[in-house]
Amino acid sequence: MTESFFVDLNCDLGESYGAYKLGNDEAILPFVTSANIACGFHAGDPAVMKKTVRLALQHQVAIGAHPGLPDLVGFGRREMAISPEEAYDMTVYQIGALASFVKAEGGTMHHVKPHGALYNMAAVTPALAQAIAEAVYRVNPELVLYGLAGSALIQAGQKLGLRTANEVFADRTYQPDGTLTSRRLPNALLSDPQEAIQQVLRMVKEGKVRSLLGADVAIQADTICIHGDSAHAVEFAQQISQVLKAEGIIIQSTQPTA
Amino acid sequence: MTESFFVDLNCDLGESYGAYKLGNDEAILPFVTSANIACGFHAGDPAVMKKTVRLALQHQVAIGAHPGLPDLVGFGRREMAISPEEAYDMTVYQIGALASFVKAEGGTMHHVKPHGALYNMAAVTPALAQAIAEAVYRVNPELVLYGLAGSALIQAGQKLGLRTANEVFADRTYQPDGTLTSRRLPNALLSDPQEAIQQVLRMVKEGKVRSLLGADVAIQADTICIHGDSAHAVEFAQQISQVLKAEGIIIQSTQPTA
Amino acid sequence: MTESFFVDLNCDLGESYGAYKLGNDEAILPFVTSANIACGFHAGDPAVMKKTVRLALQHQVAIGAHPGLPDLVGFGRREMAISPEEAYDMTVYQIGALASFVKAEGGTMHHVKPHGALYNMAAVTPALAQAIAEAVYRVNPELVLYGLAGSALIQAGQKLGLRTANEVFADRTYQPDGTLTSRRLPNALLSDPQEAIQQVLRMVKEGKVRSLLGADVAIQADTICIHGDSAHAVEFAQQISQVLKAEGIIIQSTQPTA
Amino acid sequence: MTESFFVDLNCDLGESYGAYKLGNDEAILPFVTSANIACGFHAGDPAVMKKTVRLALQHQVAIGAHPGLPDLVGFGRREMAISPEEAYDMTVYQIGALASFVKAEGGTMHHVKPHGALYNMAAVTPALAQAIAEAVYRVNPELVLYGLAGSALIQAGQKLGLRTANEVFADRTYQPDGTLTSRRLPNALLSDPQEAIQQVLRMVKEGKVRSLLGADVAIQADTICIHGDSAHAVEFAQQISQVLKAEGIIIQSTQPTA
Repeated sequence: MTESFFVDLNCDLGESYGAYKLGNDEAILPFVTSANIACGFHAGDPAVMKKTVRLALQHQVAIGAHPGLPDLVGFGRREMAISPEEAYDMTVYQIGALASFVKAEGGTMHHVKPHGALYNMAAVTPALAQAIAEAVYRVNPELVLYGLAGSALIQAGQKLGLRTANEVFADRTYQPDGTLTSRRLPNALLSDPQEAIQQVLRMVKEGKVRSLLGADVAIQADTICIHGDSAHAVEFAQQISQVLKAEGIIIQSTQPTA
Repeated sequence: MTESFFVDLNCDLGESYGAYKLGNDEAILPFVTSANIACGFHAGDPAVMKKTVRLALQHQVAIGAHPGLPDLVGFGRREMAISPEEAYDMTVYQIGALASFVKAEGGTMHHVKPHGALYNMAAVTPALAQAIAEAVYRVNPELVLYGLAGSALIQAGQKLGLRTANEVFADRTYQPDGTLTSRRLPNALLSDPQEAIQQVLRMVKEGKVRSLLGADVAIQADTICIHGDSAHAVEFAQQISQVLKAEGIIIQSTQPTA
Repeated sequence: MTESFFVDLNCDLGESYGAYKLGNDEAILPFVTSANIACGFHAGDPAVMKKTVRLALQHQVAIGAHPGLPDLVGFGRREMAISPEEAYDMTVYQIGALASFVKAEGGTMHHVKPHGALYNMAAVTPALAQAIAEAVYRVNPELVLYGLAGSALIQAGQKLGLRTANEVFADRTYQPDGTLTSRRLPNALLSDPQEAIQQVLRMVKEGKVRSLLGADVAIQADTICIHGDSAHAVEFAQQISQVLKAEGIIIQSTQPTA
Repeated sequence: MTESFFVDLNCDLGESYGAYKLGNDEAILPFVTSANIACGFHAGDPAVMKKTVRLALQHQVAIGAHPGLPDLVGFGRREMAISPEEAYDMTVYQIGALASFVKAEGGTMHHVKPHGALYNMAAVTPALAQAIAEAVYRVNPELVLYGLAGSALIQAGQKLGLRTANEVFADRTYQPDGTLTSRRLPNALLSDPQEAIQQVLRMVKEGKVRSLLGADVAIQADTICIHGDSAHAVEFAQQISQVLKAEGIIIQSTQPTA
């Protein structure tokens, strides 16, 4: 009997704001299984949130809140020295704002994935990770917490009994300790789509990734981040989706790490 | 057998923001039965919302969302030419943000009362009133909709089957058609606390208010607005609470107009 | 001896914000003589302002501040019930913010044109018009005030002794009283570019425009608004610029009405 | 012949925002010689800026811009990972916004002092310090740059040829290297006003401060920061002003380090 493999494809959506359009939400939705929807702090506004929730429901894609730092002009990408309590507060707030649109549309919220600098800080700062995990847990313990594979955020979620989804990146390179190569370094990105797809296949089927120094590192790949705003995003999403299916991998949301 | 009278005392709370303190929430909470908590658009921030929800739960006061226009510098008091759809969107968003803190604390949300210019516009503009009522209904049809007594907002709520609370003001004067005298006119305010209290008693027990021209007007008084930020707010709240009790009126939240 | 005609072509620029790109500033700059640069309230941010000022200086285009209402999500297009004093304050603030970038680059600021709802309100509300004109005058009486041709804003500027520029629109239709046909009405727009260009030529050379009812109305055309964000904006800017030149009309900024 | 000593007393002012009042500006103005006025990013709004500029001019107090990080809810106190270019841009913007009110009132701007986290980061990060100093220099090379005594910001200003003012604190303790003791450590504050005043006198007259470890450190005290929002702020400002005068020290703004 053959082993079954599962993976989730997630994408950041709903990043437009007022008169400003960003991303290609409708084109990418057919190829992903989870949508992380911006909640108005780093991107998104109430009108965009409603529209994106409706789109996700039409495509039967799992809906997640994508809370970010209160930094619209910086798109939530600049680290801020927030306290764990502030991280808790802004996470509770943003989850609720999105959940309200989901409820108004008769849907169910599925997960939470912090955005940008909040995601990065939560990956390496246990106190922030714990605060965010607690926010998720207290608002709704059924929600799945998405975070960088093996990071402090995943650990904090597991400690609280939350289901978690270890996120991996198709087009980023990895260090021998399993962390991502910083974007400030050369070789941070895999520019060849074929190489990116092979990396994903190995992570999903073998639980391994070859680090930049050549040695393999163990990694759990519950969900793959699909970038929605790059030039070839839709094309790559379609491609990776096809290859995964051809390899017999089941693409679906919610990968409990049990 | 004597008739029983009920009334709710509500107050706008949680209006601080970051380093800025406003109002005297802890002092006024013992005397009210409903708290309308700002949701971050015209006042309030995530930390203030959490703290205020906790305070309201401690005082067993019914918690309501107090959504406002996105105008922090104007405290939500400047009318904006928003569309009904925008009113719907900002109401869904803000209800959800507050509901999330209530849920995280194990409480239940009770009502929604629009703030400032949004309240005033919803009182006289049926399309905005309907949009706000729909937002409340779609997020949670159990919520009570607070609005100016007899206004378009109350009517829109009733049409949808929402419970509504007709709000009256102790210290404002009324026109022969039952509307409030504009603050731009002289005689808009009752400066004598005794007169204000007598006006409230008549509204609650007789369903009438004497208009500025002398004739009585019918008015339904489900809930009385207690201003939280004036100098004598706490004193007046205590006073009106005592007089109402002495008159045998039961002070409690949730007055279904059924 | 033949009469000389002059006209200015102005365009709203610098409307991007953070990660959000809007408009096609570099493509349109070669065809205009005045740039109205957003100042951070309804659009624009400090980085965008600096970049746009530099671009305008490179193209030797006159630089103006384009102050708007504090409503980023509404792009400054929603009317707000602001007081004249608030209009004064936000105009002083925004002019200064832009002037600072102009000064840092060694340039000179040339004009001020209110944006969106602030422009529209100032066109018909004398108290707001006067407040905005005073703001311009007190910050720098050398600045040219741009406003709807013949509007309250132009009148307020002239009263204070400011130079003014009467703005006309190529692609909008006019009412018998010289005002624009509301966008809410059919026939508000001239969809045929040739018709739009003919309308401009007549306004510039004859000081007349044919109103929707057929009769001519007198109009002063100091500056023509070129929309920068529509699909064919650049093409139309190029076309109108060519026709005006072919007709011997001198295209330059600063049209003192004196 | 006796030596003359000079020192400036500066205070952060104009920190109210909309309906929110902060500080006691009118009471403290009689005792200071420089006002650092918030510019709308971390505190202040256009109405508050105008009012505060007028007050400062009435009291003949030197006016400075007090630019901060774009973080109103955090009052500009949370460090953000901004780039030097972003620091430059936000400084140019905010200086200009305030300068515009000063110009409208017929006054002259005197200095720039970064606020909160921007001040702290500029004190220790040469690239940010240089960016801020360049912003000041390019907007107006006559402005005095205020910064932590001996810090990277002061050095960056001097390198560009700006006049600088080394700021010292009456009520903070110092480390053996001349830096402030972090507020996270015990003994960061001098709680005894008499001790604070003695520390100031020594810094001004001897150019020395006793560090926490007992040894003296050289320090240049051009300007003393007077906190405006604490309970006894006005009282302390009055007291220190009196003692300095009694000691024959001339209190005035602008202390060129040249």
